Amino acid sequence: MANAKKPMNAFYAQSGGVTAVINASACGVIETARKHKNKIGTVYAGRNGIIGALTEDLIDTSKESASAIKALRHTPSGAFGSCRYKMKSLEANRREYERLIEVFKAHNIGYFFYNGGGDSADTCLKVSQLGESMGYPIKAVHVPKTVDNDLPITDNCPGFGSVAKYIAVSTREASFDVASMAKTSTKVFILEVMGRHAGWIAAAGGLASTKDTEIPIVILFPEVSFDKDKFLAKVDANVKKFGYCTVVVSEGVKSADGKFLADQGLRDAFGHAQLGGVAPVVASIIKDGLGLKYHWGVADYLQRAARHIASKSDVEQAYATGKAAVEFAIKGHNSVMPTVVRKSSKPYKWTIGMAPLAKVANVEKMMPTDFITADGFGITAKCRTYLEPLIKGEDYPPYKDGMPQYVRLKNVAVKKKLGVFKL
Amino acid sequence: MANAKKPMNAFYAQSGGVTAVINASACGVIETARKHKNKIGTVYAGRNGIIGALTEDLIDTSKESASAIKALRHTPSGAFGSCRYKMKSLEANRREYERLIEVFKAHNIGYFFYNGGGDSADTCLKVSQLGESMGYPIKAVHVPKTVDNDLPITDNCPGFGSVAKYIAVSTREASFDVASMAKTSTKVFILEVMGRHAGWIAAAGGLASTKDTEIPIVILFPEVSFDKDKFLAKVDANVKKFGYCTVVVSEGVKSADGKFLADQGLRDAFGHAQLGGVAPVVASIIKDGLGLKYHWGVADYLQRAARHIASKSDVEQAYATGKAAVEFAIKGHNSVMPTVVRKSSKPYKWTIGMAPLAKVANVEKMMPTDFITADGFGITAKCRTYLEPLIKGEDYPPYKDGMPQYVRLKNVAVKKKLGVFKL
Repeated sequence: MANAKKPMNAFYAQSGGVTAVINASACGVIETARKHKNKIGTVYAGRNGIIGALTEDLIDTSKESASAIKALRHTPSGAFGSCRYKMKSLEANRREYERLIEVFKAHNIGYFFYNGGGDSADTCLKVSQLGESMGYPIKAVHVPKTVDNDLPITDNCPGFGSVAKYIAVSTREASFDVASMAKTSTKVFILEVMGRHAGWIAAAGGLASTKDTEIPIVILFPEVSFDKDKFLAKVDANVKKFGYCTVVVSEGVKSADGKFLADQGLRDAFGHAQLGGVAPVVASIIKDGLGLKYHWGVADYLQRAARHIASKSDVEQAYATGKAAVEFAIKGHNSVMPTVVRKSSKPYKWTIGMAPLAKVANVEKMMPTDFITADGFGITAKCRTYLEPLIKGEDYPPYKDGMPQYVRLKNVAVKKKLGVFKL
Repeated sequence: MANAKKPMNAFYAQSGGVTAVINASACGVIETARKHKNKIGTVYAGRNGIIGALTEDLIDTSKESASAIKALRHTPSGAFGSCRYKMKSLEANRREYERLIEVFKAHNIGYFFYNGGGDSADTCLKVSQLGESMGYPIKAVHVPKTVDNDLPITDNCPGFGSVAKYIAVSTREASFDVASMAKTSTKVFILEVMGRHAGWIAAAGGLASTKDTEIPIVILFPEVSFDKDKFLAKVDANVKKFGYCTVVVSEGVKSADGKFLADQGLRDAFGHAQLGGVAPVVASIIKDGLGLKYHWGVADYLQRAARHIASKSDVEQAYATGKAAVEFAIKGHNSVMPTVVRKSSKPYKWTIGMAPLAKVANVEKMMPTDFITADGFGITAKCRTYLEPLIKGEDYPPYKDGMPQYVRLKNVAVKKKLGVFKL
């Protein structure tokens, strides 16, 4: 019998803000690795993302049953814990990168799967470069994830479609509500959504209005400087024509002086600064400017955790990118990221492509200017054509006694082999 | 051939804040009336609730197709428009009640179905009394609806179960999210929910935590005076034990001095009062008291409009009470309300009962004190047994291109026969 070399293990970690479908990517990674036991030994997950690798706090995913791993596909959040921890540049903190390689060596890790956004793509790229320069063989593949939809090359980012669906559905539902109440009560409903730098999520609010179901929606994008008079005129015109108006406002909207509208200086009774949202600020502007009765909501984590109304396209793509990452690594690819490639919008057809990390890291994809209508308050037909397929289909989790059954893993720790590392 | 008397018509109106399932009650009323054409002629709906009756602005529901009426069952909001318009007492404004009877006479209306909460039950009672005293035969039946769950006699109110399900599901999802982030980022998530006077909706947040899926949740009920030190100690203990904590806060929480916590005096940079929610106030208390990173959300209309995650029990009961209202009226009952009667909790069995309006009007059902744990921050086993059946089952609307297909009716106006009436 040939002396079969023991296959190398894999490391997988979740990074940054979690989503409704990042665990579907984890599911794709782990299920696919389990199908290739001759190539990949055990998948170790980082407890709380990359911090788990730095501190040698690894989770042995082989201790999880097949059904638990399968349930990751319908479980929101990051099952292994995520973190907001940006590794500095190789020059500024070579120590951390060398520690990663040290941990990988100690646990015979030859595959590095990093599931996150732009910063993580950069870390992933650096790990692959350092592996090469230190002569340690590591295949580093980035698995895309971000509700902000701002990674380049890929047509869209897993995580975004489900937020978009949640915002589109919620905007439609709340608009039906305010329309019912407008005669004697609330005439304007304001929904604050995520998106610090780009208006992708706010744009999804525009999907609530269709040819069949017209809804007067005013979107405030971070890409468009807030113009109070123009905004009030638009809301006023909608209320006059339709009896009501819905406003979808991105948390990242700025006034002409470049300041966040949300930071306009809310104070409590004692003069202390309040970390308010932008929705109550917009509400006050409407009250002062038009005297209309309003209600406002802030979706916050609800929007990115809402696995109960996840987009089927999104779940499938999150799984497919996780699966492809493993397949790429097995085939010997390094320093790459699986991408979603759109073949056609109607009907929606997509496939998985591959992008070199050097072209992904540190590049932000902004929303094209021709996705926003000339008045700055709506989405164009082109934008709609882009967005619609991404919210297509439902993918309901299983329920028990009225509640969705989300899995919690055992997350068994791997025995440490190295000394303590201070972050 | 016998000289068959033309059956009298019916009037139906929606009142107060709308819900995810009030249209399911409308569906029950209209479909059942259509099955008894020998007893009920046309169902006229009030455009914008009772205002439609006062101003003779009636909608002819016979112009709507069977499929449009069927679609009401899965459409949130009030399809005919609702209103916040409380009719004064008979003594204070007899003119309005007499106008109602005048409009009913003009349109041969012999049935009055009023779909709302406590105030509407009172109006419905008065209409039946006035009909009697004026010698005009009117069968007045109230159809229960309120997310506040505060009507007496009935085990629960249609509309509540779906809000409860939305809050329970959202609280679980957001808790999974914050748990993933807690290592390096957000440790406390605060969700503001409706319920000005009673903590029913806040209590539903407690359903997010079960034996299988334990979640550290602190509930702030309007029934319990806010005690800052006790609250901070509880949150701190949870964060120390679990790494994170979720807070579900009712908009109606008051401090010991009886003031709403939400009204503690937010000001903008110019010193103008801000109508903020209570969530940012609680967030500031946590930041100042514990220095923990937090996120907060305000569900507002999203919670009561969320037909996409409606409770199946709730939809069925909303329909059943609408249906029963018509059946009661046909049988000659007057001044009554269909109720939900619980036969057993496990398994959940219920049936429809009947309550006299005199016992419903002006009576508020508060949450029993033994539904709240001794420390004031949680729900008891008894509360859980009560709530769980109400969120049972899913009842998904149909989707097209990723969006729920909610119906909009034609709402054709009935020709007026009377002069103008000034409200």
